[in-house]
Amino acid sequence: MVRVLVIHDEGLLRSALVQLLRSDDGLQVTSMSPRSPRADAPKRDARPTDVCVVDGDCLEGPGEVCGARFRALCGDRLVVLATPERPGVLRRAFDGGALGLVDKDASAQRLITAVRTVAKGERFLDETLTVALLKGAQMPLTTRELCVVSLAAEGAPVAEIAARLHLSRGTVRNYMAIAIRKVGARNRVDAIRIVQSAGWA
Amino acid sequence: MVRVLVIHDEGLLRSALVQLLRSDDGLQVTSMSPRSPRADAPKRDARPTDVCVVDGDCLEGPGEVCGARFRALCGDRLVVLATPERPGVLRRAFDGGALGLVDKDASAQRLITAVRTVAKGERFLDETLTVALLKGAQMPLTTRELCVVSLAAEGAPVAEIAARLHLSRGTVRNYMAIAIRKVGARNRVDAIRIVQSAGWA
Repeated sequence: MVRVLVIHDEGLLRSALVQLLRSDDGLQVTSMSPRSPRADAPKRDARPTDVCVVDGDCLEGPGEVCGARFRALCGDRLVVLATPERPGVLRRAFDGGALGLVDKDASAQRLITAVRTVAKGERFLDETLTVALLKGAQMPLTTRELCVVSLAAEGAPVAEIAARLHLSRGTVRNYMAIAIRKVGARNRVDAIRIVQSAGWA
Repeated sequence: MVRVLVIHDEGLLRSALVQLLRSDDGLQVTSMSPRSPRADAPKRDARPTDVCVVDGDCLEGPGEVCGARFRALCGDRLVVLATPERPGVLRRAFDGGALGLVDKDASAQRLITAVRTVAKGERFLDETLTVALLKGAQMPLTTRELCVVSLAAEGAPVAEIAARLHLSRGTVRNYMAIAIRKVGARNRVDAIRIVQSAGWA
């Protein structure tokens, strides 16, 4: 019997995924919200689950190390649900050591296969995600540039970004100009849009 | 027997919702992608379904009339899945005449109850969404201001927005300044963030 924990921020879809996985009699399925305190402070001595199935969008958040919160729950036996449209999310999951990457557009059977594969400690990667994952490897911004873009995306003015990152305003403007050029954007708003839609920030 | 059509853009969650609804023997459930051609050009003579269950995020897109594409499929017997965080989506669904609004954080049983209620032609509104829906009524921007913000959000520079809306650059800047003030934003990027996260654009 494989114990599976489903983590998704929308209760309805969480229940739906649980029910879908329960169609396999060999899986014992529970679920929780990523906002639940259990996710932040899991017990480190006991492995309460064999495999976690996590919505890739839950891995986001500035500066968060992918799935660090979930690793204590299931080690690297993490199946991340993602889309090819967001290579940044895929990259974060992959670099964070998640063994499974399943396309959100896959069939129910593929998810079950992924869970069973990852439960054995083997890697499962949907082909549809491979190209996107390679693209995510080409994230052109440095951490500093990405930081500036992320803060700007929150609506912070240049002066505030400068203060928060301990930089001069000129340096912030410079980083922003470099970021705009690197991602091929037309302006600041366009750069933010590109970076966010790719899931890099 | 109530015929239900599930519309969600992620195949895996679509299958999961179908399976969840099939736990009620009185529901005959099928599904499709919102990108499917059937959604754009439904047959107007036949009602292929009694109730549609649609992910609220599928109703988005600049200038799209809510669920116009789905009305031919099921009339007003539309159940929209939404979150309180996006009052703009709720408002669009409500104004578009959708009878059902279900919180994405609701239980599976509530979704089934909603489908059965809407199938009888009655309204179903999750209490958790009521306040957010009222807030969505207070969308402070005019259509023109919203248009300017939406185009800016796509990364269009002022000159391009002016050309596309047949306005002068000064007028575009003026609309943008008004929008920033009205939504209580700190700057242009902040205004875009606020408008997008509320689901107004």
